[in-house]
Amino acid sequence: MEGDSTFPSNPESVDRVDRVVVEAPLTIILGEQVLATTMRTPGHDLDLAAGWLVSESGIQQSNQIISMRVFSGSNGERAVGTDFELDSEDINEEEVDAVRVSVSRDVVAPRPRAYITSSSCGVCSADVLNEFIGPSAPLHSSGWRFDPRNALGFVEEMRSRQKMFDLTGALHAAALVGSSNEILFVREDVGRHNAVDKVVGHALTTDLMPLTDHTLVVSGRVSYEIVAKALTASIGAIVAVSGPTSLAVDLARKYDQVLIGFARERRMNVYSGQERVAS
Amino acid sequence: MEGDSTFPSNPESVDRVDRVVVEAPLTIILGEQVLATTMRTPGHDLDLAAGWLVSESGIQQSNQIISMRVFSGSNGERAVGTDFELDSEDINEEEVDAVRVSVSRDVVAPRPRAYITSSSCGVCSADVLNEFIGPSAPLHSSGWRFDPRNALGFVEEMRSRQKMFDLTGALHAAALVGSSNEILFVREDVGRHNAVDKVVGHALTTDLMPLTDHTLVVSGRVSYEIVAKALTASIGAIVAVSGPTSLAVDLARKYDQVLIGFARERRMNVYSGQERVAS
Repeated sequence: MEGDSTFPSNPESVDRVDRVVVEAPLTIILGEQVLATTMRTPGHDLDLAAGWLVSESGIQQSNQIISMRVFSGSNGERAVGTDFELDSEDINEEEVDAVRVSVSRDVVAPRPRAYITSSSCGVCSADVLNEFIGPSAPLHSSGWRFDPRNALGFVEEMRSRQKMFDLTGALHAAALVGSSNEILFVREDVGRHNAVDKVVGHALTTDLMPLTDHTLVVSGRVSYEIVAKALTASIGAIVAVSGPTSLAVDLARKYDQVLIGFARERRMNVYSGQERVAS
Repeated sequence: MEGDSTFPSNPESVDRVDRVVVEAPLTIILGEQVLATTMRTPGHDLDLAAGWLVSESGIQQSNQIISMRVFSGSNGERAVGTDFELDSEDINEEEVDAVRVSVSRDVVAPRPRAYITSSSCGVCSADVLNEFIGPSAPLHSSGWRFDPRNALGFVEEMRSRQKMFDLTGALHAAALVGSSNEILFVREDVGRHNAVDKVVGHALTTDLMPLTDHTLVVSGRVSYEIVAKALTASIGAIVAVSGPTSLAVDLARKYDQVLIGFARERRMNVYSGQERVAS
């Protein structure tokens, strides 16, 4: 319903679907075992599966993944091998409904999930409160400081680089910023946990891990699970457009991770890691 | 960081915590069995547990719940009985960490969840795609029509009645609107699924079920699971501030449920049930 019309002066708008974000199930298979089915926005599904495994199994290096393949119910299995990239000419991303991952023997397989999880949840982290181990590498090199003057620019550039973003905010975004303050890549999903998994997964498969001195930018709020996922990848700072929860702040403070919320409209709040923020 | 300051000219703001939404685990126990632990914002936990059981076990009447009790790790068990109301003088809502529910024999117990779920997920619905049964009563009486001129007012009134809302949008809200277009009550949570569960649970325990001709108002986007929860309670219409996903639209259309999204800035989109929308 475009323009300034009020319903129903423009009845043909009823059938517009261009603003509808796609939500569809993706099954993650490890070897022959179905681990989980998550609701997600199709696209970058290998990133999603790889990132989920970082959080759930502690994978930290791309060579721990031997192969990843996508499945499509309508087209049968497509082998993708180890280059972690979908051939966009060969695969219709909308038709992908499963990813099968083969990992090296040192990887501890996550417990399977008995339930389909919702898109806003991603694949819920197992026993997040009790089983979180922490980062495997330092979050910061000794002299690293987060320059808060960059934070709003990170958010703006992430927005401008969202491919699916439709000005309505119906899709979450996450971006990874390198240690030289450049945005490396942006991922989107109807679920904010999925967007973060896609970012971490792409970092893993492009051999950027651990993400010491890197910054994760997220379009929404920051729950405990978002901080936990960032810490598992040793990410030094999180910049969020909305606010964190109490548990998210507690967890970030425990590791001196820089946590900045409400980065919008020329303001921001620093919730954690202030000694790492340049003045 | 108030005013127009840019970081860090107002360094004392670093320790502000008033904008942090509380996120804490709540365990739902049926009889002696732990069913699930969900991350939620404390408050209206009996509503949350009751509403979760509506979605997960198909409870439709308050007399199927024999008793509900809240637990607090620091204060021991507090019996609440069957009046479904926390005594706010006796219980510190922030200290509640479990709800135990006793149900009548006709209720089929949901399968236990093996994992703590994130606040944005609520307690993920079991096998949402395969096991959804549908409403137990008609969504609409024969002459009922949704008047779109009311939609924006519903959103505004819900916002004005949010107790915890802090102008930042960090907390989700859901409201129930009666068949005479009056907002009956508003619930809030860091997780939008939880906010909807709290609304449905309060409707159950105040004997409003089934919610034929009622409208659910939600502050955020509408995923498949939100539509499924509303349908299970036989809710006739959903009005959302943000947009629905593709699966949400498909499910609402299957049942001719009115689904309105992007109800803001004098516009709205009708995605489903247009024959039930007054012109």
